[in-house]
Amino acid sequence: MPVFLDSRDDGFEAAFSTLLSAKREDAPDVDDAVAAIIADVRARGDAALIEMTERWDRLRLTPGTLAFTPEEIEAECARVAPADRAALELAAERIRAYHMRQMPADAQWTDEAGATLGWRWTPVAAAGLYVPGGLASYPSSVLMNAIPARVAGVERLVICAPTPDGTVNPLVLLAARLAGVETVYRIGGAQAIAALAYGTETIRPVDKITGPGNAYVAAAKRRVFGKVGIDMIAGPSEILVIADGDNDPDWIALDLLSQAEHDESAQSILITDDAGFGRAVASAVEARLATLERRTIAGASWRDFGAVITVRDLAEAAELSDRIAPEHLELCVADADALAARIRHAGAIFVGAWTPEAIGDYVGGPNHVLPTARSARFSSGLSVMDFLKRTTMARMSPEALRAIGPAAERLAQSESLGAHGLSVRARLDRLNAG
Amino acid sequence: MPVFLDSRDDGFEAAFSTLLSAKREDAPDVDDAVAAIIADVRARGDAALIEMTERWDRLRLTPGTLAFTPEEIEAECARVAPADRAALELAAERIRAYHMRQMPADAQWTDEAGATLGWRWTPVAAAGLYVPGGLASYPSSVLMNAIPARVAGVERLVICAPTPDGTVNPLVLLAARLAGVETVYRIGGAQAIAALAYGTETIRPVDKITGPGNAYVAAAKRRVFGKVGIDMIAGPSEILVIADGDNDPDWIALDLLSQAEHDESAQSILITDDAGFGRAVASAVEARLATLERRTIAGASWRDFGAVITVRDLAEAAELSDRIAPEHLELCVADADALAARIRHAGAIFVGAWTPEAIGDYVGGPNHVLPTARSARFSSGLSVMDFLKRTTMARMSPEALRAIGPAAERLAQSESLGAHGLSVRARLDRLNAG
Repeated sequence: MPVFLDSRDDGFEAAFSTLLSAKREDAPDVDDAVAAIIADVRARGDAALIEMTERWDRLRLTPGTLAFTPEEIEAECARVAPADRAALELAAERIRAYHMRQMPADAQWTDEAGATLGWRWTPVAAAGLYVPGGLASYPSSVLMNAIPARVAGVERLVICAPTPDGTVNPLVLLAARLAGVETVYRIGGAQAIAALAYGTETIRPVDKITGPGNAYVAAAKRRVFGKVGIDMIAGPSEILVIADGDNDPDWIALDLLSQAEHDESAQSILITDDAGFGRAVASAVEARLATLERRTIAGASWRDFGAVITVRDLAEAAELSDRIAPEHLELCVADADALAARIRHAGAIFVGAWTPEAIGDYVGGPNHVLPTARSARFSSGLSVMDFLKRTTMARMSPEALRAIGPAAERLAQSESLGAHGLSVRARLDRLNAG
Repeated sequence: MPVFLDSRDDGFEAAFSTLLSAKREDAPDVDDAVAAIIADVRARGDAALIEMTERWDRLRLTPGTLAFTPEEIEAECARVAPADRAALELAAERIRAYHMRQMPADAQWTDEAGATLGWRWTPVAAAGLYVPGGLASYPSSVLMNAIPARVAGVERLVICAPTPDGTVNPLVLLAARLAGVETVYRIGGAQAIAALAYGTETIRPVDKITGPGNAYVAAAKRRVFGKVGIDMIAGPSEILVIADGDNDPDWIALDLLSQAEHDESAQSILITDDAGFGRAVASAVEARLATLERRTIAGASWRDFGAVITVRDLAEAAELSDRIAPEHLELCVADADALAARIRHAGAIFVGAWTPEAIGDYVGGPNHVLPTARSARFSSGLSVMDFLKRTTMARMSPEALRAIGPAAERLAQSESLGAHGLSVRARLDRLNAG
């Protein structure tokens, strides 16, 4: 049974706090194992990768077969059904169009002191994308990671994807090709992250690594952070739906279940101002669970972490939502735009009942890599910005230095940084002499 | 002696690679100690903070004296010399003006499918800034961290700063006041980071922690990352100066020394196309070292990590610079703008010989918190973006769902996510029925 709360009840605050702080996932401590794997890849390169891939993926590789050949990719892509290909192409096109709008502008101006200031954005030179194998091998995630990188202008974009027993999802390779990925390596786990960060004889190191993965991959990303950039470390997925009583309970039930079916640790929460509607949705969830393909996973998630919260009004719903800071927020109320305007902390908002969250997973355009576990309080979903960096620029005219140099000299002295002050003073003396 | 390299020499590539990969700092392993400190603060709150502050800062506090009172801050600020105050005010004003230009715009548009898409930026609600005590207690860093937060719109901004034996730098408190900091706590170390991340009876938790610190602070920031946002973990500072033979060797020597004087692990590199000029700069460094206040630190840095590299031409200088990806890059050449345009990886560029790096440390306007240790390949200096997060928005009209919904359904099926597909299908069925 999911938890049912009512904001008018005594003890609501305590129960809501418990819901907020509930730990949904026990990450196994694989840090020592991962440290050893990284050290081994750094020491032995390709040989270590090949050995580990044989051990864990039951696949014999050579340096020459670490990467798929263009012919292999072509052959796999040819197996994709035309309808799947068309859907993937539509998704790629829409994701690209959205992310192109994110490109930030360079700036340059000269201020009244005569200082020319500004900044310039440049792409990272090379990025590596991790794509999990097995059940969580999602072609949509390939698009969501690779397209922002390409839009940013990343020149070299590679994928590491384990292929247990040699199996690969052709849609993953097609998505890679649609997104302009250069090379796809048949390796996974912490060893793949090590290879991307440090390079081997065959694999050139990259500057940024993104993409989801299991506990080993996450621990390896944490370890190589600093040597390379990484995206966030994602936790289990979550959705909050705020819905009034005028919705079809079945639609809302399906939206909740589309999060719950990801993972037994996923979380689906409904907030409504209509207690009867809340009960109707809970019934609809049970009804749909009876026939859902992934009912075991979705049922466990809903039972263990699901919640239905009745509130006095939508203003209170917005307040609770900001405390949850949900990864996905669906607003199914009469004036969804007005409610959206009240929200401060959320990864992505799906506005109105015609926008099921699943649209955002695939074809909406915005990125589906979003901050989990309340981190929308301080972080954002993946974007082109993750593949760009900003260089600030400053150019002083002699007049500008004359105007603001003395203040710099003074502050340097107050911080006991003598050479700082002298580097300004030497130039001011020249100006005063000239 | 710094290292002298010439790109025409045999063995240059090997020597340059060694320079690139030289480890300048051995971070002590304090991770277990830090884990214990964080656990203690989480368990015992204020009591733990007070105990640790007495032990390490020799200062007896109570919950009521953890923070400076407004009267105490006022009294300290009154001690600041007028010239120092004026310099700090000029710096604050220029930093604010620069960072206001960084505010990104929200966006919203409706595409041809009928989908209304966009994003919205919102500030983090609360941020905590760590300010080291003792030698590295820089008022300029208070401005550089706090002003972007305030420009971003952060409502609650607090500082933690250790005050060993009760001593405090009045300029730090004045900088805090100029920057709009709400509260300054007299605590430091890993315990301060724990208090900011998890809160105590007296200290409310924040959403984002920034600011430099020692190995304990850095390890604590790494540990609380995820619970709250953090800025980068900074390594020792570094400068690369590219200068032609038409410069005053003394100016360039002072610029190199203004980095070297920060820290024995700092690094200063000169690249020049004029070998004789390189030798003249090295002589000027020695001459200045004789009288520099911080000659012991600066001398050790220059001797151990300094380098003078002679190249064939400025194109080669730009290539080497991108491999170094320097935190600070000074371009003292005839056409500095043209050279700047060739650079891809640098934290901040100081264009032309009238722009010593020290200007950027204080009053230039751009931020002085910049990516170190080659991380300018994939990351940027501190900015208002660090205190903002983006919420993506999507709203489908019924027509938009009809146009792109089937592709989402298809992709959901290909990823075996049944409820995803059904959440779209249920709405499409209604449309088709209607």
